[in-house]
Amino acid sequence: MTNKYEQDLPQSAANHSPLTPLAFLRRSAAVFPDKIAVIDDDRQFDYRTLLARCRQLAAGLGGLGVQDADTVAVLCPNSHEMLEAHYGVAMAGAVLNALNTRLDAATLGFILEHGEARVLCYDSEYEAVVEQALSSVSQRPRLVAIERDHGASGGLADISYEALLQGAEASAEPLWPADEWQAITLNYTSGTTGNPKGVVYHHRGAWLAAMSNAMAFEMSADTVYLWTLPMFHCNGWGYTWAITAVGGTHVCLRRIDSDLIYQRIERHGVTHLCGAPVVMNTLINDLGAQGKTLSAPARFALGGAAPPSTVIRKASEIGFRITHLYGLTETYGPSTLCVPQANWAHLENDALAEKMARQGVINFAIDEARIADPQSGQALPADGISLGEIQLRGNTVMKGYLKNPETTAEAFEGGWYHTGDLAVMHPDGYIEIKDRAKDIIISGGENISSLEVEEILYRHPRVSEAAVVAMVDDKWGEVPCAFVQLRDDGPGDERALIEFCRTHMAGFKVPKKVVFGELPKTVTGKVRKNVLRDRTGPTNNTSS
Amino acid sequence: MTNKYEQDLPQSAANHSPLTPLAFLRRSAAVFPDKIAVIDDDRQFDYRTLLARCRQLAAGLGGLGVQDADTVAVLCPNSHEMLEAHYGVAMAGAVLNALNTRLDAATLGFILEHGEARVLCYDSEYEAVVEQALSSVSQRPRLVAIERDHGASGGLADISYEALLQGAEASAEPLWPADEWQAITLNYTSGTTGNPKGVVYHHRGAWLAAMSNAMAFEMSADTVYLWTLPMFHCNGWGYTWAITAVGGTHVCLRRIDSDLIYQRIERHGVTHLCGAPVVMNTLINDLGAQGKTLSAPARFALGGAAPPSTVIRKASEIGFRITHLYGLTETYGPSTLCVPQANWAHLENDALAEKMARQGVINFAIDEARIADPQSGQALPADGISLGEIQLRGNTVMKGYLKNPETTAEAFEGGWYHTGDLAVMHPDGYIEIKDRAKDIIISGGENISSLEVEEILYRHPRVSEAAVVAMVDDKWGEVPCAFVQLRDDGPGDERALIEFCRTHMAGFKVPKKVVFGELPKTVTGKVRKNVLRDRTGPTNNTSS
Repeated sequence: MTNKYEQDLPQSAANHSPLTPLAFLRRSAAVFPDKIAVIDDDRQFDYRTLLARCRQLAAGLGGLGVQDADTVAVLCPNSHEMLEAHYGVAMAGAVLNALNTRLDAATLGFILEHGEARVLCYDSEYEAVVEQALSSVSQRPRLVAIERDHGASGGLADISYEALLQGAEASAEPLWPADEWQAITLNYTSGTTGNPKGVVYHHRGAWLAAMSNAMAFEMSADTVYLWTLPMFHCNGWGYTWAITAVGGTHVCLRRIDSDLIYQRIERHGVTHLCGAPVVMNTLINDLGAQGKTLSAPARFALGGAAPPSTVIRKASEIGFRITHLYGLTETYGPSTLCVPQANWAHLENDALAEKMARQGVINFAIDEARIADPQSGQALPADGISLGEIQLRGNTVMKGYLKNPETTAEAFEGGWYHTGDLAVMHPDGYIEIKDRAKDIIISGGENISSLEVEEILYRHPRVSEAAVVAMVDDKWGEVPCAFVQLRDDGPGDERALIEFCRTHMAGFKVPKKVVFGELPKTVTGKVRKNVLRDRTGPTNNTSS
Repeated sequence: MTNKYEQDLPQSAANHSPLTPLAFLRRSAAVFPDKIAVIDDDRQFDYRTLLARCRQLAAGLGGLGVQDADTVAVLCPNSHEMLEAHYGVAMAGAVLNALNTRLDAATLGFILEHGEARVLCYDSEYEAVVEQALSSVSQRPRLVAIERDHGASGGLADISYEALLQGAEASAEPLWPADEWQAITLNYTSGTTGNPKGVVYHHRGAWLAAMSNAMAFEMSADTVYLWTLPMFHCNGWGYTWAITAVGGTHVCLRRIDSDLIYQRIERHGVTHLCGAPVVMNTLINDLGAQGKTLSAPARFALGGAAPPSTVIRKASEIGFRITHLYGLTETYGPSTLCVPQANWAHLENDALAEKMARQGVINFAIDEARIADPQSGQALPADGISLGEIQLRGNTVMKGYLKNPETTAEAFEGGWYHTGDLAVMHPDGYIEIKDRAKDIIISGGENISSLEVEEILYRHPRVSEAAVVAMVDDKWGEVPCAFVQLRDDGPGDERALIEFCRTHMAGFKVPKKVVFGELPKTVTGKVRKNVLRDRTGPTNNTSS
């Protein structure tokens, strides 16, 4: 029997609509029509114009034959065009597939084929790789060339981006999702092995992720956001939508360059930026060497590995306030973060860094984070010791992997998303990541966290970057092998580094070998540990 | 045919859950277990304890027979018990009906009967009115007495609130809504005429309203919120949930008293508070007279009528930063607000007040606000002239009126919620409220906004409060009649006030009569214009 609260109280156009980030642009264009929405080098558009351009893009895509639930791929740097695609594509009823600009032709070809892109917009800078990629695609997409910096397309494209917009009606009514569970974007993960998987986001999740991230990062209409994070990375962790939601200003950045970043921060009064540790490290090393500081503090949301205390201190001296985040493509980016507690205020630098390196405060639309035994699925105690997999559930977990039901089912087994990251939960509920499941080193039956060894290596004044992987060992099964990039150009001193480690950790954890040189990285800046594992070679020292 | 983005990508426990404010308390209890959640005179509870108490309340209500979708009514001041009810009742699967403490027995009886309250929790202060109200209720609810300040129940109650909690298991698992459209609260509107209507809120709307209001009011874990707004008023405009969402501190306040408010602000470092104009007026008059200022600025969200420039100036001198909001019980409170634009910075006091008196920036979960002809339903232009009804749509519009399908259908006619408020929309999209539809004065065929005349009266240095209503007139049909409460105890000078008006407005708008004395108000502090209309009597001056 229906109870009285379910009777005669249906959803209607007055009281229910699908949550969608399209509403953010509509709102900001109404509330702040004359406010600068996006600055991209010498171009800038106010919110009224940004909305008009997105509507033109939608109409133009419709003219190219784009229909409901088609895929529109975009390959271009962090630019106003990429931002526009985050609205215009959805307004055409289609799904945006933002492509990583550092991918090779073969991977691009795989993605275009798998995602069934109906249209590909690309910056003419990438015409050569696009042409190569298309050779392996069975249904050639319609091609739109973004001819901004690198001139006209060499004849490959069907039309230029600006011509597409100019030929379209800004007055055409944008399509609105019929259901908030409808897909909005498709983001391929850059796995270190195997084919990329297509992570599908929906309108509801995108709205919730944007609002949650705006709240977590304390954004408002005064926010000026610098695009140091690629927009193709989890849709810029949802900030393509969040900045628009609060009516802030997007400042584009087409390449990572410390001088350029510093200039933009100072010129535009940047309040917020995001990035991977490598961006932060480069930035503070470069600015530090030049003795530059920010005239007003800026908040830096740092994804990926935990920041060592030296990084936190140096960043703070320059004027960056770091927030450490943890997330994955599968969770719309940030899923847990490090919210400082009031009683941390008195902590000294190293103790504070230890706290700040953790996270575990769930973002607003994540329901729960737990540490569980990856085999049994049993939750593990928050004792700071029990090592298990981070598992998450909530409304900002992906819809699933496109055309990949087995992997989707595996990822969601038991009603939790399995991150594959290993961590302990401390009694205060904060999570300390120990390793990727596949990066753990098992030596003589003991688990060694490669992250833990790396953290010690980072404390050495000569170490700029460090990665530790398992090396096959006849006696111990596996032993740690360190790969180190130095700050200086001097020769590496393996013995000195091993000695340094020995004074800071249990003997079985000490790397048995140190290799010096530049570290191989994925296109998203992650160290390619699988490549390093191949380079370990046989150990020449098995004494513990 | 299902498209590829709908295939094999279903909702599961890992990636979908109903939006509910219960998640806010769960999250803050996990993240900030030791942080003070609520301060209520000499009692205070941290988030861990608040969650435990809410779970006990839920278990206790279950023990009283409360089941899914039952109504639990609560009659008590702004206290920790009222806050606990905002979570504990929903955790029992039930619907909270927070009652206005200023209602008479007959109205309370009507509400308890209409809402079918299964349990009534009441502060023992109200035992007499409760006993009287129950005489007209056919199914007597189980009675729980909150015996804090006013001692033990006089034998009416079945159990005391604390005994109910102590007898319950904190470990009992709270019920979670199966669907986010499920009802969470029931709020009766205090109409000036007719029976109150029961406005139903749902979990989704409550979550969205809380997040939107936290964003709009720039709240964070540092927020300390003083409860000058009744929690029974749209669930404290959703701040019962929003403050918990950000992990801020609730500071209770059981009665409006300027000295008490000032003390609490200073002692607890209050950052945010809300209220009706009468609260703000009283506060700034009292603090102004004593020459008191705040040691740190506090944000005051002002609902109801637009603040005159003198109020804005005085408030600012004391240390309050005013945000003007517009909303109704039917829209979970704030639906549109006044977000200042960058180019207002150079405006002088009166010009700024004119801007600040408007609103029209839709809150994040409201989709659209428009001005429309209430008869034809046609949207009117944003020209600052065309007078029409404010109509709203979005996810923070109520589920509807309980057991009242006709009125619900009427309120939502044409897919918009009809507010009954008359306004113009300026070319910048900002809305200026002119009047309640029923408060407009039609004189010789011309519409006169009673608000506009009141605004001029407020500029007179002797006027403390003013209300203008229609008075029957043989010649003009209706003419304005002003009711004025003076700041001083001196005699009223009708001729002087009429002269003052004549120099500030068109002749036909000038009140033909001025009556001095205290203004009658509803229990929520709205001037009872229907009572004033009865008091107008015949006009003694019909010259224009």
